[in-house]
Amino acid sequence: MATIRQPAAPEDNPRVKAVFDDIRATRKTDFINNLWRTLAFDPALLERTWIDVKALMATPTELDPLTKEMIYIAVSIANACSYCVHSHTAAARAKGMSDAQHAELLAIVALAARTNHLVTGLQVPVDRAFEAG
Amino acid sequence: MATIRQPAAPEDNPRVKAVFDDIRATRKTDFINNLWRTLAFDPALLERTWIDVKALMATPTELDPLTKEMIYIAVSIANACSYCVHSHTAAARAKGMSDAQHAELLAIVALAARTNHLVTGLQVPVDRAFEAG
Amino acid sequence: MATIRQPAAPEDNPRVKAVFDDIRATRKTDFINNLWRTLAFDPALLERTWIDVKALMATPTELDPLTKEMIYIAVSIANACSYCVHSHTAAARAKGMSDAQHAELLAIVALAARTNHLVTGLQVPVDRAFEAG
Amino acid sequence: MATIRQPAAPEDNPRVKAVFDDIRATRKTDFINNLWRTLAFDPALLERTWIDVKALMATPTELDPLTKEMIYIAVSIANACSYCVHSHTAAARAKGMSDAQHAELLAIVALAARTNHLVTGLQVPVDRAFEAG
Amino acid sequence: MATIRQPAAPEDNPRVKAVFDDIRATRKTDFINNLWRTLAFDPALLERTWIDVKALMATPTELDPLTKEMIYIAVSIANACSYCVHSHTAAARAKGMSDAQHAELLAIVALAARTNHLVTGLQVPVDRAFEAG
Amino acid sequence: MATIRQPAAPEDNPRVKAVFDDIRATRKTDFINNLWRTLAFDPALLERTWIDVKALMATPTELDPLTKEMIYIAVSIANACSYCVHSHTAAARAKGMSDAQHAELLAIVALAARTNHLVTGLQVPVDRAFEAG
Repeated sequence: MATIRQPAAPEDNPRVKAVFDDIRATRKTDFINNLWRTLAFDPALLERTWIDVKALMATPTELDPLTKEMIYIAVSIANACSYCVHSHTAAARAKGMSDAQHAELLAIVALAARTNHLVTGLQVPVDRAFEAG
Repeated sequence: MATIRQPAAPEDNPRVKAVFDDIRATRKTDFINNLWRTLAFDPALLERTWIDVKALMATPTELDPLTKEMIYIAVSIANACSYCVHSHTAAARAKGMSDAQHAELLAIVALAARTNHLVTGLQVPVDRAFEAG
Repeated sequence: MATIRQPAAPEDNPRVKAVFDDIRATRKTDFINNLWRTLAFDPALLERTWIDVKALMATPTELDPLTKEMIYIAVSIANACSYCVHSHTAAARAKGMSDAQHAELLAIVALAARTNHLVTGLQVPVDRAFEAG
Repeated sequence: MATIRQPAAPEDNPRVKAVFDDIRATRKTDFINNLWRTLAFDPALLERTWIDVKALMATPTELDPLTKEMIYIAVSIANACSYCVHSHTAAARAKGMSDAQHAELLAIVALAARTNHLVTGLQVPVDRAFEAG
Repeated sequence: MATIRQPAAPEDNPRVKAVFDDIRATRKTDFINNLWRTLAFDPALLERTWIDVKALMATPTELDPLTKEMIYIAVSIANACSYCVHSHTAAARAKGMSDAQHAELLAIVALAARTNHLVTGLQVPVDRAFEAG
Repeated sequence: MATIRQPAAPEDNPRVKAVFDDIRATRKTDFINNLWRTLAFDPALLERTWIDVKALMATPTELDPLTKEMIYIAVSIANACSYCVHSHTAAARAKGMSDAQHAELLAIVALAARTNHLVTGLQVPVDRAFEAG
């Protein structure tokens, strides 16, 4: 169904193999999901994408791992990316997201969408108090 | 600039006054921002919107207050709602969001948008492993 | 603020003048709004756009004029087009939209956005009953 | 395919059963579509969503039922919610939408999207005449 | 899966047949893809859509054919139109798009989405230098 | 108006100065636009963003510079990023985009948006012929 045919033996390419090895080591799993298998058609694009996903999502940073996944899900919903909603919901689950947290995440996303559309329909002017500096 | 003229004396309407009083009491401030002042043109819409925003965003729930604001900002960015980005960034700041947390929030939103578009361009099929149940 | 400088004397071009004359005659007003003044930089694009807007929005068709404007506003909100929300809200007002109808339109748009995001977050599968044929 | 497994026997939960009973009574059908079956994983979210959908879409209000469904479809298309387009098109059909009305709805949505993008590309400034008050 | 049942024998309608004949002649192929087969339910909508697609995409104009397809793909990705991404990627391939060009197109779309979201999150004010005229 | 106050003397930070120096050298101009001045609040985010923008947009690659800017504009329009539309239209002009090319770019973006919405409203199933491999 993809617009690119997944390479049949992607790891024959050493650059692809290096990225796949790093994904397996970083995530401590043998599972390589379809995004990476599809990106293997262009090793440079695969490398750049993985480096940045790893740096932000698979490395300790300012925000905790579950919060980061929930923000990722929120954006993916608003951008209507079905695959991304699936993959990052699975990731959030793996990082401990409970049913109650999932329900609340969805409720906030839905509330934000509702007031986003209300505000855009009303064309509410920005309050001076909200302007930085 | 709004598509609705803000009522000049919104609190002459007792339903509007009741909502505004509740906003002031809940937020512990005299400041009523333009969203509510504009919604005052229709007291029923004002009431419904405030009740739901209050229940989720101004009441202790499953997720902590700052996480909720960051999710709200993420959706507002993806939906290109300028007012909402302003108002919820101000709210997140008031709840303690640091510059470093703000920068990381924006970096995650930008990364999600990037892979959302990449995935949609590739039309990556959903892995069976991501399907619930 | 536009990305194109509005031609200073657009009606010096006879193709532009013909479109502007038709806008004035069709709408029974001397007012030519900025969309058309800006599109005047490319007479062919101006002509094609006006012909199609006129055929659907300024000609009696299947749906009544106010319903058509409300559908137009709904799409413009979801696409975050500030100018379009302004211009079509003004058009809907001119065609008789009351404050109560405006409030309900916004409430439906906001409700739809809310369930759109909820459904996308849940990735609800389409019921067989909803499939045409 | 959903990100949440539908509860196998959702009506064992009395809060879910109450909502499902109300859906059946309100819509005069035994059919409960997948949105509600999926939302059953969180009874509070199910209740809040149904209460608001019922109040606006299944109760006589300012706008007529078919107009409301068409506005809902318009937003759902612009937000790229496949499930929502399916379910509300089915609802509009059930409320009498003809092929000709459906075609015109789609034509207006498409026209609005076209001018939305044109206007955003041109960054047309809002005419003073469009500002409320 | 469509919201409209494709007419079983669309070319029994002479207006549909004329459009299909023109598609076959213009594209030098017997293949009529599902968009046109579905639009056949409303001959007027079919005609208007084809005339405009043909004029811009199947006729020599200012920009070269492959550039036009790549712009079309970029918009279709950002609007999350799965069918459109598929059909225009196939068209771009038919017009010579290589794997390397495809990868770069996707990389630019992803980069634009990333800075679009960053800029909207920051609410960067437009530089005077960018204003036309 | 931004959600972040631009640092008053950003180049006091050597990491910011290094990026700004590279922007000036790469673009052969003293002008640093507001995106970079605002991103200066977080040197790491500034660096990562500039490195990737430079690699794709300010370095010879597969596609020619003007085509890349037009693709960037197309995405920015669809994502409703006003600043991005302004800045990349200015960049495209600087790289030689004529009025006629600009008009055609906008016409294609508008046509794509139109068929995107039409297809999503119809929920057209993907033709087998469009599937890669």
